[in-house]
Amino acid sequence: MKHVFKQKSPLKQFVSELLSGNTVTLARAITLCESQKTADRKKANDLLQEILPHTGRSLRIGITGSPGVGKSTFIDAFGKSLTSLGKKVSVLAIDPSSAKTKGSILGDRTRMEELSKDPLAFIRPTATGNSLGGVADKTREAILLCEAAGYEIIIVETVGVGQSETTVRGMVDFFLLLQLAGAGDELQGIKKGIMEMADGLVITKADGENEKRARQAQTEFQHALHLFQPSELGWTPKVLTCSALEKKGIDEIWKLIEAFHSFTTKNKSFRKNRDRQNLSWFHESIDSLLKRDIFQSSKYSTKIKSMEKKISSGKIMPSLAADEILKMLLK
Amino acid sequence: MKHVFKQKSPLKQFVSELLSGNTVTLARAITLCESQKTADRKKANDLLQEILPHTGRSLRIGITGSPGVGKSTFIDAFGKSLTSLGKKVSVLAIDPSSAKTKGSILGDRTRMEELSKDPLAFIRPTATGNSLGGVADKTREAILLCEAAGYEIIIVETVGVGQSETTVRGMVDFFLLLQLAGAGDELQGIKKGIMEMADGLVITKADGENEKRARQAQTEFQHALHLFQPSELGWTPKVLTCSALEKKGIDEIWKLIEAFHSFTTKNKSFRKNRDRQNLSWFHESIDSLLKRDIFQSSKYSTKIKSMEKKISSGKIMPSLAADEILKMLLK
Repeated sequence: MKHVFKQKSPLKQFVSELLSGNTVTLARAITLCESQKTADRKKANDLLQEILPHTGRSLRIGITGSPGVGKSTFIDAFGKSLTSLGKKVSVLAIDPSSAKTKGSILGDRTRMEELSKDPLAFIRPTATGNSLGGVADKTREAILLCEAAGYEIIIVETVGVGQSETTVRGMVDFFLLLQLAGAGDELQGIKKGIMEMADGLVITKADGENEKRARQAQTEFQHALHLFQPSELGWTPKVLTCSALEKKGIDEIWKLIEAFHSFTTKNKSFRKNRDRQNLSWFHESIDSLLKRDIFQSSKYSTKIKSMEKKISSGKIMPSLAADEILKMLLK
Repeated sequence: MKHVFKQKSPLKQFVSELLSGNTVTLARAITLCESQKTADRKKANDLLQEILPHTGRSLRIGITGSPGVGKSTFIDAFGKSLTSLGKKVSVLAIDPSSAKTKGSILGDRTRMEELSKDPLAFIRPTATGNSLGGVADKTREAILLCEAAGYEIIIVETVGVGQSETTVRGMVDFFLLLQLAGAGDELQGIKKGIMEMADGLVITKADGENEKRARQAQTEFQHALHLFQPSELGWTPKVLTCSALEKKGIDEIWKLIEAFHSFTTKNKSFRKNRDRQNLSWFHESIDSLLKRDIFQSSKYSTKIKSMEKKISSGKIMPSLAADEILKMLLK
């Protein structure tokens, strides 16, 4: 990353470019934050601390849905409807790798064709990392950088796999679940935990012969949502239908999100939710830093290796061996 | 837990009762390990270290499947078929609470009616804990205690929610996925990450009109499984069908698991997999102990509180605040 901060007062210059909305600078800043190198990390921290006063002013929207629900097509249409209102929109993605193969299990996805050509839109492919936690940190930082660059709506999309939805829910203001009509009881069962997290649910592909089924599903899901406890925000989740193909129902979704925004601003839960999220970020960061520092220092790694040998030969319980490491660390 | 270890040489007496297969002692031992009290934890560690040489001799089977797949009914029938062979079977469960409500999202489930009356079976309800990690530790300890008490087959069941399947996969030898026929493309998409972890897949409710669809699904899933990389064990996962209602196909599942056992014993991957799992347990325990010790000591909690204030007032980035805590800890 040697070309970053090359000016005389390099950080100040870089920050002022970022604040002016320069997308090349924004892309570089995100890449800097994604770097695993220690020197880059130091620069990234300085940069982030510098832009902190210029962050927090966007509306952060999480979007999830199973493969096949039409997520990319939806975000393409939804994003375009926002830019047509003159809003600057950025799209970030979290796509957890398969636990086993370490590669994407979904393969290449159709990108957002229209939105990617729009000068008011900034689309950033998935951050990479060794763990979902690592990816989450990078995405949180990317949100702040986009905000500093003047983006008013940040969309964080994720596929409905593993913990990623909980992770995204923890970094956005409004969480939107996309759902197909007529996917049956099984899908409802699986998605129940996710449905509890949603502030809004949209039945996609409500066009042609599918429209009637979509309306039915809308009624059913609205009933189902009533079974859950009211959210901490005091907001009752709504169910809408839309067709990205026929461009129907897209504006209504933005109206719903605006209603949510003014409702939660009025009852102060918007601010409280952001606070809670920042504190979770803090605690999650402590966890991941601890892990990194312990397993990388030679002092601990020697002790850990010897414990691993004892475990493999059945001489000590793994949890007791962990106790020994802790005693060494916190003495 | 004052009635535990009450004899003259209380630990030795307790251990000998446990090793003789006394189920009251086994239940007490599991409860002791689940206790959050420091004094109980010390006793639990002594007990576990004492029984360690008597553990590891069971076959550990993980079973997962979405709500509605007929998991309890299947385990009831499968367990009975094992006890009818004279085998001692124990059933443990991991049921992660909903991230939001902290309560079960599935409500009361039909228990295993037949198996629960069988003297060769030991069924233990879900362990409780503050986190999935905590629950996982308790379940691992419960597995060891059941093994010490002479149980030859340990079944660990879980619902298909969040990370719980990865957690269970990490503590069993054979991982069985139950699946319904004709649940469509959506479900396949969602379950792909889980399918990759499975050593066997069983299409349930293959009876009456459903039987033909089940056979079709069997062929489709067998094809789908071929798309994945071969597992580290060298084993190719198999797909079977069964009807717990008509007691069909149950014996074949046990034969499959026996074939898996002899295959992985021969190529030594059985032992290697157990080793890997013990090492993961060790590392996960370090993580959770660190978390506990840091957040509970007053030295760190004061510093953490002051950082939290700075974060809430927007004066410091959460990740930088975490850095400060780490510097204090590892100086």
